[in-house]
Amino acid sequence: MRAAIFIEPGKIILGEKPMPVPGPKDALIRITLTTICGTDIHILKGEYAVKSGLTIGHEPVGVIEQLGSAVEGFEVGQRVIAGAITPSGTSNASLLGFHSQCGCHTPHGWQSMGGWRLGNTIDGAQADYLIVPDAMANLAVIPDGISDEQVLMCPDIMSTGMGGAEAGHIRIGDSVAIFAQGPIGLCATAGARLMGASNIIAIDNITERLDMAKHMGADHVVDFSRTDPVSEVMRLTSGRGVDVAIEALGQQSTFEGALRVLRPGGRLSSLGVYSNDLKIPLDAFAAGLGDHSIVTTLCPGGKERMRRLMEVVASGRFDSKALVTHHFSLDDVETAYDVFAHQRDGVLKVAIKP
Amino acid sequence: MRAAIFIEPGKIILGEKPMPVPGPKDALIRITLTTICGTDIHILKGEYAVKSGLTIGHEPVGVIEQLGSAVEGFEVGQRVIAGAITPSGTSNASLLGFHSQCGCHTPHGWQSMGGWRLGNTIDGAQADYLIVPDAMANLAVIPDGISDEQVLMCPDIMSTGMGGAEAGHIRIGDSVAIFAQGPIGLCATAGARLMGASNIIAIDNITERLDMAKHMGADHVVDFSRTDPVSEVMRLTSGRGVDVAIEALGQQSTFEGALRVLRPGGRLSSLGVYSNDLKIPLDAFAAGLGDHSIVTTLCPGGKERMRRLMEVVASGRFDSKALVTHHFSLDDVETAYDVFAHQRDGVLKVAIKP
Amino acid sequence: MRAAIFIEPGKIILGEKPMPVPGPKDALIRITLTTICGTDIHILKGEYAVKSGLTIGHEPVGVIEQLGSAVEGFEVGQRVIAGAITPSGTSNASLLGFHSQCGCHTPHGWQSMGGWRLGNTIDGAQADYLIVPDAMANLAVIPDGISDEQVLMCPDIMSTGMGGAEAGHIRIGDSVAIFAQGPIGLCATAGARLMGASNIIAIDNITERLDMAKHMGADHVVDFSRTDPVSEVMRLTSGRGVDVAIEALGQQSTFEGALRVLRPGGRLSSLGVYSNDLKIPLDAFAAGLGDHSIVTTLCPGGKERMRRLMEVVASGRFDSKALVTHHFSLDDVETAYDVFAHQRDGVLKVAIKP
Amino acid sequence: MRAAIFIEPGKIILGEKPMPVPGPKDALIRITLTTICGTDIHILKGEYAVKSGLTIGHEPVGVIEQLGSAVEGFEVGQRVIAGAITPSGTSNASLLGFHSQCGCHTPHGWQSMGGWRLGNTIDGAQADYLIVPDAMANLAVIPDGISDEQVLMCPDIMSTGMGGAEAGHIRIGDSVAIFAQGPIGLCATAGARLMGASNIIAIDNITERLDMAKHMGADHVVDFSRTDPVSEVMRLTSGRGVDVAIEALGQQSTFEGALRVLRPGGRLSSLGVYSNDLKIPLDAFAAGLGDHSIVTTLCPGGKERMRRLMEVVASGRFDSKALVTHHFSLDDVETAYDVFAHQRDGVLKVAIKP
Repeated sequence: MRAAIFIEPGKIILGEKPMPVPGPKDALIRITLTTICGTDIHILKGEYAVKSGLTIGHEPVGVIEQLGSAVEGFEVGQRVIAGAITPSGTSNASLLGFHSQCGCHTPHGWQSMGGWRLGNTIDGAQADYLIVPDAMANLAVIPDGISDEQVLMCPDIMSTGMGGAEAGHIRIGDSVAIFAQGPIGLCATAGARLMGASNIIAIDNITERLDMAKHMGADHVVDFSRTDPVSEVMRLTSGRGVDVAIEALGQQSTFEGALRVLRPGGRLSSLGVYSNDLKIPLDAFAAGLGDHSIVTTLCPGGKERMRRLMEVVASGRFDSKALVTHHFSLDDVETAYDVFAHQRDGVLKVAIKP
Repeated sequence: MRAAIFIEPGKIILGEKPMPVPGPKDALIRITLTTICGTDIHILKGEYAVKSGLTIGHEPVGVIEQLGSAVEGFEVGQRVIAGAITPSGTSNASLLGFHSQCGCHTPHGWQSMGGWRLGNTIDGAQADYLIVPDAMANLAVIPDGISDEQVLMCPDIMSTGMGGAEAGHIRIGDSVAIFAQGPIGLCATAGARLMGASNIIAIDNITERLDMAKHMGADHVVDFSRTDPVSEVMRLTSGRGVDVAIEALGQQSTFEGALRVLRPGGRLSSLGVYSNDLKIPLDAFAAGLGDHSIVTTLCPGGKERMRRLMEVVASGRFDSKALVTHHFSLDDVETAYDVFAHQRDGVLKVAIKP
Repeated sequence: MRAAIFIEPGKIILGEKPMPVPGPKDALIRITLTTICGTDIHILKGEYAVKSGLTIGHEPVGVIEQLGSAVEGFEVGQRVIAGAITPSGTSNASLLGFHSQCGCHTPHGWQSMGGWRLGNTIDGAQADYLIVPDAMANLAVIPDGISDEQVLMCPDIMSTGMGGAEAGHIRIGDSVAIFAQGPIGLCATAGARLMGASNIIAIDNITERLDMAKHMGADHVVDFSRTDPVSEVMRLTSGRGVDVAIEALGQQSTFEGALRVLRPGGRLSSLGVYSNDLKIPLDAFAAGLGDHSIVTTLCPGGKERMRRLMEVVASGRFDSKALVTHHFSLDDVETAYDVFAHQRDGVLKVAIKP
Repeated sequence: MRAAIFIEPGKIILGEKPMPVPGPKDALIRITLTTICGTDIHILKGEYAVKSGLTIGHEPVGVIEQLGSAVEGFEVGQRVIAGAITPSGTSNASLLGFHSQCGCHTPHGWQSMGGWRLGNTIDGAQADYLIVPDAMANLAVIPDGISDEQVLMCPDIMSTGMGGAEAGHIRIGDSVAIFAQGPIGLCATAGARLMGASNIIAIDNITERLDMAKHMGADHVVDFSRTDPVSEVMRLTSGRGVDVAIEALGQQSTFEGALRVLRPGGRLSSLGVYSNDLKIPLDAFAAGLGDHSIVTTLCPGGKERMRRLMEVVASGRFDSKALVTHHFSLDDVETAYDVFAHQRDGVLKVAIKP
């Protein structure tokens, strides 16, 4: 079968691999649609290390082809998705609710980011077929009448972005600022809207993304290349600051901006993947006396999470398709990587069809 | 092998059963210690229906004898316990954190009390051997240096009782009243103490239980056969009422008492298994305007829960052995039922050794 | 000045009262708009007792006429609202966050419903002028560009209804059923929508109210005079039940229906003012083992709550004006009571202008 | 009257001031006991700026001498304490529950650390008499039978330290590490014990403080001058890390240590007053993907907080007197500062009697 394979930093190719065989708790999925994530670009660039020969991708939409001998409750032929994070459900971390930090099948039970396996520690979704591990915890049946493309954002982007809004504990009437409006940030903006924030301020420097932020529910957009975002957010909140700030890029500037716009007692929800140590400026942190919270979220996974996100899509509350700007066949996956990695042509997310 | 088998209401006998064979996700445990629960007495009396021929019991301590083919992370010979509730970890309910309401292997994923399988829908622990379903989610290794008897309360009584304190969201400085001081109520009292309540009022009518309540951490005890518990709790809280009231019997009188002693905005944590409709008196409920909460808890299970409770026991914070007042061999299980069902001889909990 | 005065059960009249004089912590407000609440009808009917001679009403919109000597931070002439509940902010209950159960100026600090003073224990808002007690905690300035009518629902109906959604802890992707679609229930429906529920089911038997429920965000409406609401909700949730059910009428039937449609582990948020003892059916309550929660909410008050709700109105997320179906002058307040009490002419809420 | 007055960095003297006169919402307290806080040493050293001439101190125990004209619910002669933080109760911040960030009487309502007024923005407690602002929210009556010395830790040290445990959301069975065992850290250790942690690890380099940590409830103590605390905590948690780490010093080393010992999904509760920017190391932060939380807490205040802490003291759960190692008269306050600032003679906390 065909697969997008990581060879070495700078090189992901379309190659051939043997058909995988599911173990007793696995499912074999025929991929019908998948996409490329910003994290995949980190892998491509060598900023996040995976072993050579690994199939990349962690956002699968497909059809059940074969079920492991110990898998109950599903049937061959069902249309399904699985989350980017595929927790075991049975580890100590999972049982305590930290599915993304699931030690999966280690005796220990806890491992940082241990729930992220697809395209990280085992072969991923940018291929003709995919093994979904711990299938009973991870296969989520797509509701009738919902297209593959509509649910393509559920496995990662939507789960992560809305997870950032949820981790911010947004309440009705909150002011919320979201720093960066890439796909994750846009979903965080949509999540803030879904949760009842009444003053949503989205920050980026790309006009198309700011326009999309408005479409996703932002009340105000700030182009940080024209306006200082911290002072603008303070102005838009009458000097009060926001209840919740969401960081969606993974850089010092966005992290620090998010901290500086918080009201005393506010909450910084961080979604970005950082590449460097972070600095917490003493003044922005009120010397540790501001009753601030800083929380980080790794994409929530598991079939119940996917079921809920697909219900949101089905309800029409969230225009998931608006984020898919480009379509490619799996044969053209290398081109897709090129377009996505260089943000050519106003790309937000690409759809890849085997 | 020997097993305590439910035949019909009024009749649980020691019988013979074939050795069970574990499925791929199961573990076979050789039981080294178990006990009888108040719920087993409901089964015995026919108040809770199970099918004839079922092995009773849901509080296993034992040694791993055999592991299913798909079970990883454990070894034959390890000393383990499993909770009374054995969630799959992989159902929708489990993944959302409601392990006790786990639909286990139904496609639907949710089922009221679905996590309770041992001695309810599958054979239980009062036997020489036990199948633990979904072993990876449910086997919890006993720490070195801790005896079987020390952990015997973990699978149900301690998990339920302390779960009632936890569901009450007890905070440092809270006043808490616990209605009924059977084994569950005593563990709720201990839980209130563990969580930082500063004014703990335990209510029962049996002197030995009230004495044990003091041992478990109660500041005050109230014998309801001598004093009206509602007015006494109000007196002991200077007319303010308690922040949290815990119901630990399953009757209208204890439920209503718990509601009547709540301060406005207080929380009633209900643990009892009720046999009849409940009445919420209009005045006690402030006509629905008192910002009250009523929460119910079914015994939390799963291996992480068990690991934590065993850590509490190992820390010396909770004197679990004090609750085990009587010892029997499995051959004498019928006598054990008789003593426990009729609360003879000051019995709190019995230990049964195969 | 003119005031709507309760004389005796069945009799509220427009009478004359002397101009009130504010104490040091009070503010005197010239009322510019107010409304009648369902609770006022309970008072009119004698179902809720207040003393004869009391001015009724607890939903004030007005202008600051005079400030008490100890009041800082406000100016005469500012347009303001105050919540139906006027907590002191300084009682033990308030300081712990239970503002509605504020004992206000009692040494004790806690009193069931103690935060409700306007039109209950002190003169209310259906008058030319109103004393707002503890003005510093309760005056909320109306943002520029927002009309009196737009904020008329904030003091009670919107705060209570959305408070019911909040107390339900609604999450993105939840299914929610709301029993009864009077003004409070409609606001609860709007609140469920604001908080991200993806499957909102509104229940009533009046076509206009069901239509308004759709306008407020319901995905499905159920006319209980034509369809059994419990089985219909179960059907609309594929047999799973709802995550959160909101009771918004105060009767056994709605309370019981709400309980019966809950999934295991679900949450019943009760808003109604009950007139009788409630029954919790054993089966609906899973004998106390369903991990259910039942929570009640009295209208949240205080100036920060009002500020937030006015921000929601200003954001355009909630069409508050749609609920105001009828307009009266204060001189016609007796007619207004007649129309509202008998739900004539499709009335939802009336606006009364002094 | 006598007062400890800040003159300039390095100079706090005992001076004379006129008797203060309470405003309408104030109370005048005759101080019977007070103490010096680490924050006062920051003021003395010029690390935290206050205006010259200010009376220092924010930990008052005393007797009501006079009540402002608008104060209800108290009587002259009552023995009381007030918290170090004296929220108004009526600001937006207070009404939302962020009392320490109370903007008190600003129209805005929010101000970082705005609740801290005593010995910061108004005259403090190290004097013969003290004005307690917003007396109705802040005077807490000492229970009969409890000595001044027993409640001396309530206004700040105990509230802050236990607040750190509370902000850590410690649960039954948690592992908790506390970095630094000064008075605040010791109270955090006691708080962890009160909340049910089963594995409490206290870290410092002073033997007497480590001994006191055991007295306060630590299961293990680590002398960081002899052992690397991070690897030792990992060893004591079998490589799992702690659920909650508490920082109680305000330095990079303790902050970073606390982060490094967290399990994935763990929570860092920060109490220290920092003097420099902080660094979050990329690896310790799992690049932002570890589901970590970092929370800061400023001493919770208000009379309900004080009431609860005094109940804890009265219950005998917390040996508050053990922390008071030295006694001075107000006349010797300069000596007391010298002893406390230089940590002479094993001092933990000093008691100062006017």
